[in-house]
Amino acid sequence: MRELFHADLKALGDQLVEISGLVREAMDKARTAFENADVELAEAVITDDARIDYLQTSIDEKAIELLALQGPVAADLRTVVAALRMSSSLERMGDLARHIAQLARRRYPDLVLPESVREDFRQMADHCVALAGEVEQLLTDHDTTHAQQIVKLNAAINELHAKNFKTVNAADWNASGAMTADVTLASRFFERFADHGVSVARKVTYLATGEWEPVIEID
Amino acid sequence: MRELFHADLKALGDQLVEISGLVREAMDKARTAFENADVELAEAVITDDARIDYLQTSIDEKAIELLALQGPVAADLRTVVAALRMSSSLERMGDLARHIAQLARRRYPDLVLPESVREDFRQMADHCVALAGEVEQLLTDHDTTHAQQIVKLNAAINELHAKNFKTVNAADWNASGAMTADVTLASRFFERFADHGVSVARKVTYLATGEWEPVIEID
Repeated sequence: MRELFHADLKALGDQLVEISGLVREAMDKARTAFENADVELAEAVITDDARIDYLQTSIDEKAIELLALQGPVAADLRTVVAALRMSSSLERMGDLARHIAQLARRRYPDLVLPESVREDFRQMADHCVALAGEVEQLLTDHDTTHAQQIVKLNAAINELHAKNFKTVNAADWNASGAMTADVTLASRFFERFADHGVSVARKVTYLATGEWEPVIEID
Repeated sequence: MRELFHADLKALGDQLVEISGLVREAMDKARTAFENADVELAEAVITDDARIDYLQTSIDEKAIELLALQGPVAADLRTVVAALRMSSSLERMGDLARHIAQLARRRYPDLVLPESVREDFRQMADHCVALAGEVEQLLTDHDTTHAQQIVKLNAAINELHAKNFKTVNAADWNASGAMTADVTLASRFFERFADHGVSVARKVTYLATGEWEPVIEID
């Protein structure tokens, strides 16, 4: 019974790795579409998000089945509940990558961002793709050094988010309302993407160590 | 054993009602703080959000304990898993009310919004408070007519969100970058608040009827 349970738990873990790989790819493509006004790539991200949503539902069904058939307790139970939570976070990360792609599609053939903020956003996107890669690695090998990397990348993303906010609030900001709205939303989408990555990192760390590290304020 | 289980399940349901009442109050106060530049009320919403976060953790611990000790199956299991999901949605609704309060605090003593959009936001906030009231009622009596109301209110909120987007994108929009960013974020916060309300409505409806109605696209 326990061997069967652990095989099921492994299958659940494999699906989390699969979904995190799709999320990393989605963000990688979304940022390219966003930076290059590549509407076909944007469309691909938007379409492919359905696969992430499908996988989330599949993970949830599997987790519920596991709870029903095996009635796990203690650490095993917490692992299954954490999988349910992580699948939510990963699905939201997929949505946020899709939102970035949707911004690109909406402004096509124009670029979304004014020239003055492109470099900051390029860095933000680099960090988000790197963070998604760390999430995938963390779910693969459960080595909590990836969680530390995720927290560091999130801090850098938060700094860039704060910088974008200042830029838009500065007296010399003179972009149109449309561009200002897009900068505001894009910055928030990247920042939220990172928050969900930290949320996954916290859960894996908790399962591995029993400690709620890395502790950060998520909202 | 089953009687004990149902008492525990009722306690879980009572906590969901309590958290939804706090969420409704939070949005009611946040919108007032936002509309009147009432910084003390804004502070109260920000501080009180800790209680909502605490209750979420408490619901989650109770749900996990229930799973561990009682090993529920079938409909009972789905109810417990749904409670875990609903507590997340309600906690996010609390965060979003807090974000509205934070916008008010950041611009104090100024008002956040330019005069031209205040009436649309007043309606949006009205709908959000009404929606939060319907969520509370739905969790109290499980009457799915509240779910239908939630879907209707969400549709009205989405329309106002689209209208705000058009306003900011129009050629004659000439507010500052700071105000444009705030309008963009505030509109998104109200809209996301409503989305999470629909998410709760879907779960209660599913548990009550076995059907995933009201079906709407949430992102």
